[in-house]
Amino acid sequence: MTLVERLDECVAAAGSLLCVGLDPADDADAAAAERRCLAILEATLSEAAAVKPNLAFFEQFGAAGYAVLERLRARVPADRLLILDGKRGDIGNTSAAYARALFDVLGADAVTVNPLMGADAVAPFLSHPGRGVFLVARSSNPGAADLLDAPLADGTPVHRRIVELGLRWDPGGLVGFVVGATDPAAIAGIRAAAPYAPLLLPGVGAQGGDLEAAVRAGLDRDGGGLLLSVSRGIAAAPEGPARAAAALRQRIASARQAVSPA
Amino acid sequence: MTLVERLDECVAAAGSLLCVGLDPADDADAAAAERRCLAILEATLSEAAAVKPNLAFFEQFGAAGYAVLERLRARVPADRLLILDGKRGDIGNTSAAYARALFDVLGADAVTVNPLMGADAVAPFLSHPGRGVFLVARSSNPGAADLLDAPLADGTPVHRRIVELGLRWDPGGLVGFVVGATDPAAIAGIRAAAPYAPLLLPGVGAQGGDLEAAVRAGLDRDGGGLLLSVSRGIAAAPEGPARAAAALRQRIASARQAVSPA
Repeated sequence: MTLVERLDECVAAAGSLLCVGLDPADDADAAAAERRCLAILEATLSEAAAVKPNLAFFEQFGAAGYAVLERLRARVPADRLLILDGKRGDIGNTSAAYARALFDVLGADAVTVNPLMGADAVAPFLSHPGRGVFLVARSSNPGAADLLDAPLADGTPVHRRIVELGLRWDPGGLVGFVVGATDPAAIAGIRAAAPYAPLLLPGVGAQGGDLEAAVRAGLDRDGGGLLLSVSRGIAAAPEGPARAAAALRQRIASARQAVSPA
Repeated sequence: MTLVERLDECVAAAGSLLCVGLDPADDADAAAAERRCLAILEATLSEAAAVKPNLAFFEQFGAAGYAVLERLRARVPADRLLILDGKRGDIGNTSAAYARALFDVLGADAVTVNPLMGADAVAPFLSHPGRGVFLVARSSNPGAADLLDAPLADGTPVHRRIVELGLRWDPGGLVGFVVGATDPAAIAGIRAAAPYAPLLLPGVGAQGGDLEAAVRAGLDRDGGGLLLSVSRGIAAAPEGPARAAAALRQRIASARQAVSPA
């Protein structure tokens, strides 16, 4: 099964394009982070097609945080996509070890990968049957202007070259892209260049991305093919994670309906 | 103390520009990896200014591997530079969590950082007193041709733009660069652009880099300012890690002597 097929399956199971980000940034220790993540999972799984723990916020608790990641895996059901967000990428044999860590030890369905070091840094993540990657294309932060938006000699911005390369490296349905929801024009350009690739869109909420504009720009021809990822906007919502996730799911569905009223 | 000063101190203490990479790629479990790393450390610390564990090869053992990293820290003396090689980099608050994990929990003196996501992805690694970064500039692998060597609109290759940006982001003596020993011309160009920045040069040995050419190209005006990092060439040497490290130290010293006979 490809990443594209697996994503479609999870989106259909959940009836949602929402991805719940788990970024336990403010917890005192690994045990508190684990309780918080389990509470968010329980409150939001019915609203979301995917779950995305951000590795940094677990690694900040050392080995104890890493052990939380190992246990969280068991709490994500088979019909939800588990994306481990670590933005790894290194020379071939090192990326192969990261792929073992993320796919085999931690059981990810997909991982975010940093493509800076090129083809052989990405390839090891594409050789695990049924697993796939989201390559960082255009991140949601101000620093994306420094390198990712810089034009190459032929005028193509680096983030568009990453998409061209990613499509070339893709053995078939295994490569998607991370595109910040803060830049709907970049999303539209990447969707035009990659009509069938899954897009992971972070940056709505705390980072100020426009949910409706991001969804409109990112949908594929079948009205799917994207995940809108929200972390702090769910975890820190005054109304609680369950109601925040339900409202986000509804807003995404409405934006989708406005584009593809079928 | 800056990274530049700390590096000078460790180079002086060891009388060496060698960095021993710890990449336990072939061990069956975390305990075997720990034994191997401790044996390499014991055999080579007298020959090396720095030690560079590669996080991927510990993470492949899950939380148990992460715990090995925590214990290894205590075995690296204060007059040796501990570089944690994870090539992290993400939006600001995520990089801040990685910096806490690597500097505060694991006690790194310096870390390798992936600059793709720009200024705010790197900044959190530059706010820990006395700690510094090596930004990936020109990696040692074939995939470096895909993005890092690509020319930007003004003709500058991406890897040179990374150096320009890194020097701009540097609050003063805290930013160095990773440059593959496989491309002495790139090393020379980066050294010309960054006369005072520490360079971390991997890729000699298994990856085919020319040690003497890399050292000649990378030395600063004082005959220092670089670390030549060797992993498999020490761990897998038929003559054993101690003799391999001693021979590498001597070859680096000879190459240095040929350039700066003072």
